[in-house]
Amino acid sequence: MRTHDIVEDVPTVTEDEPVAAAVRLMARTRLPGLIVVDERSVPTSVLPGTQVLRMTVPRAHQAQPSLVRTIDESHADLFWEELGDRTVGECLPQRPERMGVIALDATLLEAAALMARVRSPLLAVVGADGRLVGGVVLERLLGALARAYPEG
Amino acid sequence: MRTHDIVEDVPTVTEDEPVAAAVRLMARTRLPGLIVVDERSVPTSVLPGTQVLRMTVPRAHQAQPSLVRTIDESHADLFWEELGDRTVGECLPQRPERMGVIALDATLLEAAALMARVRSPLLAVVGADGRLVGGVVLERLLGALARAYPEG
Repeated sequence: MRTHDIVEDVPTVTEDEPVAAAVRLMARTRLPGLIVVDERSVPTSVLPGTQVLRMTVPRAHQAQPSLVRTIDESHADLFWEELGDRTVGECLPQRPERMGVIALDATLLEAAALMARVRSPLLAVVGADGRLVGGVVLERLLGALARAYPEG
Repeated sequence: MRTHDIVEDVPTVTEDEPVAAAVRLMARTRLPGLIVVDERSVPTSVLPGTQVLRMTVPRAHQAQPSLVRTIDESHADLFWEELGDRTVGECLPQRPERMGVIALDATLLEAAALMARVRSPLLAVVGADGRLVGGVVLERLLGALARAYPEG
């Protein structure tokens, strides 16, 4: 089996969309991450779900965990308000990380090794022109691998 | 809302279980990770799904991505055989990382900040005695946060 056997359609976001919309999209579609594309559908970031979540955590609290504990319950429930109109592009990691992008004809082992290395349960699958074809999701990859392995 | 409002029962593994069993457990339960506990039910590792997947990737290929590309399709499908009887404990990261463990009375913001920091879509929730009570899953946390935020 190859990547093209388990690729699926995934919704994407662009850098100028609000973070709140991106988070709602992920919550609604139950994807384990989000792919950010440019106007030509070329992936510019592949964000693991935890790093989409990170965009919603006020910056001061990302750096200083002890601060978080000083916020009481009602404030925590209201923290979305801090998001305001911030866009995905404004909240991307300042040091871009190695991207989870893989070719349609990659093997499942290549996909597994890349997911493990970039720590992203979602990979962007691109065609020869670099444009997005779809996504590979950890759950589906693991299912394909588990089926290939006889019960012990 | 606090962690105890969204905690759920999650199956666990121990360090002496085979990796193959752990991976099948994750595939079957569709959890985004796995919690490793000791004989007293105290969490010793909280593994993001990508790092459970990593345990199945032959060590040589974790370090040298270029090697992966030299493996042809049929070999990739058979890579589970390499797992043999290796246990979870034998495949854990050599340098243990900061663990995703949180208290029952933590706020959702604390849980979100911790998930983002340790990059794990699964957190282990422990009681005052340090024993596992359950897990918090990214999808459910995000759902709770999204509901708290009015549609814009």
